[in-house]
Amino acid sequence: MRLRFTGSCAGVPSRQRNVSGLTLQPEHSRRWYLIDCGEGTQHQLMRMSLSLARLEAVLITHVHGDHCYGLPGLLASASMAGRRTPLTLIGPQAVWTFLTAVRETTGLHLDFPLHFIDAATLTESLVLTEFTITAAALSHGIECHGYAFEERGIEASLDTARLEADGVPRGPLWGRLQKGETVYDAQGRQLKGEHYQLMARRPRRLVVSGDNNVPARLTGLCQGADLLVHEATYTEEVIERLGTDNGHCSAARIAAFAEAEGVPNLLLTHFSPRYGRDRRAQNSMAELEREARDRYTGCLALAEDLQPYVLSREGELIIAAA
Amino acid sequence: MRLRFTGSCAGVPSRQRNVSGLTLQPEHSRRWYLIDCGEGTQHQLMRMSLSLARLEAVLITHVHGDHCYGLPGLLASASMAGRRTPLTLIGPQAVWTFLTAVRETTGLHLDFPLHFIDAATLTESLVLTEFTITAAALSHGIECHGYAFEERGIEASLDTARLEADGVPRGPLWGRLQKGETVYDAQGRQLKGEHYQLMARRPRRLVVSGDNNVPARLTGLCQGADLLVHEATYTEEVIERLGTDNGHCSAARIAAFAEAEGVPNLLLTHFSPRYGRDRRAQNSMAELEREARDRYTGCLALAEDLQPYVLSREGELIIAAA
Repeated sequence: MRLRFTGSCAGVPSRQRNVSGLTLQPEHSRRWYLIDCGEGTQHQLMRMSLSLARLEAVLITHVHGDHCYGLPGLLASASMAGRRTPLTLIGPQAVWTFLTAVRETTGLHLDFPLHFIDAATLTESLVLTEFTITAAALSHGIECHGYAFEERGIEASLDTARLEADGVPRGPLWGRLQKGETVYDAQGRQLKGEHYQLMARRPRRLVVSGDNNVPARLTGLCQGADLLVHEATYTEEVIERLGTDNGHCSAARIAAFAEAEGVPNLLLTHFSPRYGRDRRAQNSMAELEREARDRYTGCLALAEDLQPYVLSREGELIIAAA
Repeated sequence: MRLRFTGSCAGVPSRQRNVSGLTLQPEHSRRWYLIDCGEGTQHQLMRMSLSLARLEAVLITHVHGDHCYGLPGLLASASMAGRRTPLTLIGPQAVWTFLTAVRETTGLHLDFPLHFIDAATLTESLVLTEFTITAAALSHGIECHGYAFEERGIEASLDTARLEADGVPRGPLWGRLQKGETVYDAQGRQLKGEHYQLMARRPRRLVVSGDNNVPARLTGLCQGADLLVHEATYTEEVIERLGTDNGHCSAARIAAFAEAEGVPNLLLTHFSPRYGRDRRAQNSMAELEREARDRYTGCLALAEDLQPYVLSREGELIIAAA
């Protein structure tokens, strides 16, 4: 599956980075998912080959402007481009209140239904087309959620030894059992696909966090996770200088958490615009990276807008060709 | 004075054009004015050398998303960049309702005061630093305004013959009278600057319209105008094919109006995204231009995002080097 950030900057856009937005697209699918939607997300999407008609769900972590001000425009554009199929929107109730207020005060009419799901109710998993989704409440001053995406529809092979032992004759039934269907054989026996499927691998699991200054809030979601995407707004030194973390995490803190939880891949994002490319400047991306590397031995990457990241079937994070 | 569009596309952004926004900057000033603020306006501003700290006023024509969805984010960024001086916001009351709803539902705090002025009250001129501003109600289905900007602070020379005839002795008083001040001479006579000023030229006047399908609504504002900036969303042929103008103007209609009113410069914008650069395509920018040129003999330009246009002191519209 493929991840691309439409934005990786905290608070305000910079010349290199837009405000928050992340696209997630399973292999062999034109459907995709959007996590957060800061202003200008739809502009960044024009630089990718993702169609607003194929957007399955939008998940908003919290109602701060840099995570949701692009939502009304994106929905308006989807409608004007001819979308008529329903869209699932997941987020805190406050996101729905914001969107409703904008629609009412600006006469925004959408030609497709929005199905809103309050993230606070997602302690049980929600089954979408390619993923089951679970949410966890984070620590950020206002209601904010992290989301775990667990892959569905893993390719299965058949347990042919068992089929033969049970005397199920080779034929079209085998194909249906491989797909997980329940079938009846010539003797009227009920056969359940799940008894004969061999999963080729375990489902991949990724966790996308919202803004959060208490990493431990993600302990549950991170069980068995292949990848954690988390904000690293500051370095420890800057938090110390500011005298506050403003509800945000440092690169050091989230790296230490991912190390302790044994998450094999860590993708950092949501960097304060003070961090630039110049390695000699007082605040540089290199500093953020150093802080994380000092505390984390897994595979680490710092998000760049529009750069494709692939989480392979083997659970490896790959920085792909653009 | 200098005009640059942050966007010239109708409804949705395209790869070449953002949604509506126009910057206006007087000569010899770092202050500037913004007319309309679609999503992504602040992103386009990063490609110009205009500081949010020097923004004098924002004028919104109407509350449709492609003209105002960038406003909350732009204000948030101005505040985060340290702006503390008041900002004037002019628009229909509905714009204030929209902005208030967004601020309340997303906890948007601004560290500077906003002075809102209801455009419906601007039948009398409003005096700002560099311009006096007048509004006119347009025709677009919802409340929508056009704005006339008349230049203030024209350089004046002194009517020295009159000063000598009135027996005002050469000295510091002359300098104060040249600035338009009211002074008292040694005999206690009151002398008014306006009696002794010779205006070097008449003030420039430009009219920036909102969306509007009845050009005649601008007749009053266009009296003595050097430049009209107006939408030309469609060609006549497309309006005929759609069976409606959707409250918008064709290139033909606004060109004919500008010709009849004798406006010497016409700058068209807000083009439907169906019009592309390819001259051979069914709908091209060349077609829009042809329609306008057939009916207008003045100086015509079709807006391009970020291209600087200069309205010279002589009232000429110049396409400047970027």
